[in-house]
Amino acid sequence: MNHVRLASCLVRLVLCVFLLGHALPAGAQADPLPSWNDGRSKDAVLSFVKETTDQTHPNFVPPEARVATFDQDGTLWVEHPIYAQLSYCLTRVAVLAQTRPEFKTTEPFKTVLSDDARAKSKLSRQDLEKIIAATLTGMSVEQFNAEVSDWLDTAKDPRWRRPYTDLVYQPMLELLQYLRANGFKTYIVTGGGQDFVRVYAARVYDIPPEQVIGTAGDVTYGYGKDGKPVLTKAAKLLLDNDEAGKAQGIHFMVGRRPVAAFGNSVGDRQMLEYTKGGAGARLAMLVMHDDHAREYAYGPAQGLPDTKAGTFTQELYDQANAQGWTVISMKRDWKHVFPWEK
Amino acid sequence: MNHVRLASCLVRLVLCVFLLGHALPAGAQADPLPSWNDGRSKDAVLSFVKETTDQTHPNFVPPEARVATFDQDGTLWVEHPIYAQLSYCLTRVAVLAQTRPEFKTTEPFKTVLSDDARAKSKLSRQDLEKIIAATLTGMSVEQFNAEVSDWLDTAKDPRWRRPYTDLVYQPMLELLQYLRANGFKTYIVTGGGQDFVRVYAARVYDIPPEQVIGTAGDVTYGYGKDGKPVLTKAAKLLLDNDEAGKAQGIHFMVGRRPVAAFGNSVGDRQMLEYTKGGAGARLAMLVMHDDHAREYAYGPAQGLPDTKAGTFTQELYDQANAQGWTVISMKRDWKHVFPWEK
Repeated sequence: MNHVRLASCLVRLVLCVFLLGHALPAGAQADPLPSWNDGRSKDAVLSFVKETTDQTHPNFVPPEARVATFDQDGTLWVEHPIYAQLSYCLTRVAVLAQTRPEFKTTEPFKTVLSDDARAKSKLSRQDLEKIIAATLTGMSVEQFNAEVSDWLDTAKDPRWRRPYTDLVYQPMLELLQYLRANGFKTYIVTGGGQDFVRVYAARVYDIPPEQVIGTAGDVTYGYGKDGKPVLTKAAKLLLDNDEAGKAQGIHFMVGRRPVAAFGNSVGDRQMLEYTKGGAGARLAMLVMHDDHAREYAYGPAQGLPDTKAGTFTQELYDQANAQGWTVISMKRDWKHVFPWEK
Repeated sequence: MNHVRLASCLVRLVLCVFLLGHALPAGAQADPLPSWNDGRSKDAVLSFVKETTDQTHPNFVPPEARVATFDQDGTLWVEHPIYAQLSYCLTRVAVLAQTRPEFKTTEPFKTVLSDDARAKSKLSRQDLEKIIAATLTGMSVEQFNAEVSDWLDTAKDPRWRRPYTDLVYQPMLELLQYLRANGFKTYIVTGGGQDFVRVYAARVYDIPPEQVIGTAGDVTYGYGKDGKPVLTKAAKLLLDNDEAGKAQGIHFMVGRRPVAAFGNSVGDRQMLEYTKGGAGARLAMLVMHDDHAREYAYGPAQGLPDTKAGTFTQELYDQANAQGWTVISMKRDWKHVFPWEK
């Protein structure tokens, strides 16, 4: 662009700013969180962002330190009745069982291949790890990405009959966007597979692969038939990114303590403690699933039945209240749950 | 800022652009790499950047894929006679030996505590790992950062009598800056300690901690006397970021294959192979230390003596030529070596 054209552009920009100024009533600003109802949760977010981005406020945080971390399953998208990644692995087990008959008699594969939906929904994180090790290793990184991508294009959630990547929470998408617009770097910090989440995180959450921290297996370095390097997924666990592993994973991958963290289960406890443990303004929030009509209700908080191990316990609810974490009630705080409801 | 002030600012900006346009001769552009002599190396960088940032060129690379990785020791700063980090660890051994008498009779600590400079300079990477495990574990992450920072403020390189952080290569600083100005994300990918390099990478290279990938030990999660979470450095090795480990580390931390990579030793071989193995334009460069007068000369390439294990071998030199990597001759290609020589 030459100087005359650049100058002409800038003149037009000046005009636009004037016109915009006259078109909007003085002081009017669009609501950055339109899917959030007014209340304690929305206020907590708005005042945190206002204070940390105001250079004259004692809680000001310089842009490079504005790190915000988000759990995924149950915080950014639906985790019931089973994790999407588990659903993917179950499909893989069925494919692999054709050439590995021992799956039919060995747990947890036997359960996976059965029709017992209730038993499947009770598979533990340890079972998932065994399934991952058996079903995802030995593939090249590119093969894995292509397989997951294909699966995401066709698989549907059993309740809404929609792709899993539709089942993201609209209020959380707005929160991610609002934080980024204010100079925060948003990370996903998930107990789920790092490589799995990276396949769709850019498209779904606008979060690039280098800002996805998850449970990660090692890769081995070798050469293909064409002599070119190939990274192959290996069974060895490199990072177990859950509970204390989330704080370790953040130190390892980011090297800074977050100033804001968002979770929904006991797996996020240490990430929230670690975030709140730093000096200055800190925001820690927990999504509570108390909306059976629009999504699900689980966990013992507020007398809800504990339908799933390792989730929002009464103890976690008490810790949140004692340590100044904000509990987001899906039922009370969210105007819409999913993007298609707007 | 209100609309009137913003408009006034923009009008002034328009004026500045006009004045600037008249002050510079038409088409004049400052040399982005003033410390590089004209030649094959400088041309390789300039044409790579020109092609990958030109939307009409078949080698165009979209901004989010512009990942450039740099080895540190010997590529961005001096690694002779011993790695700066090893020098730091040797200081730590001397401090710890006061309360750990067994160091005086056990290798590699015995050598470290001796006056034998030659034996010290031959300590291997495995020795360094043992020393790191013994000297750096048990400290909190904050303690470690403060200790390294203090050491950097006082320690001096034996030849130039300057802080280690002065011993960075001016041409490489210009290269980092030039790539960033063209939308590349620059990463350090070092066999050295990730936490160690992060202490000064932002200040010295303008590279934030989350873009430093290095050999990393685990941290344990616990609570201090005040009940707040503490991360303590542990002996367990999490990522051995050298040779094949560099490609693994990049996949783990970035999740994208670099389009440009810079190294200086056999420890960088796989990173460069992995980078060149992708489709489209790729830039792989090796710094060759052939300038005894201004820095050091080592490695068997071009008949130089192989003074150090694990460095620039004849085999690596041959691979570079065979696979289209560009070898940077410090003597021929660099106008200045250090920032203070400008």
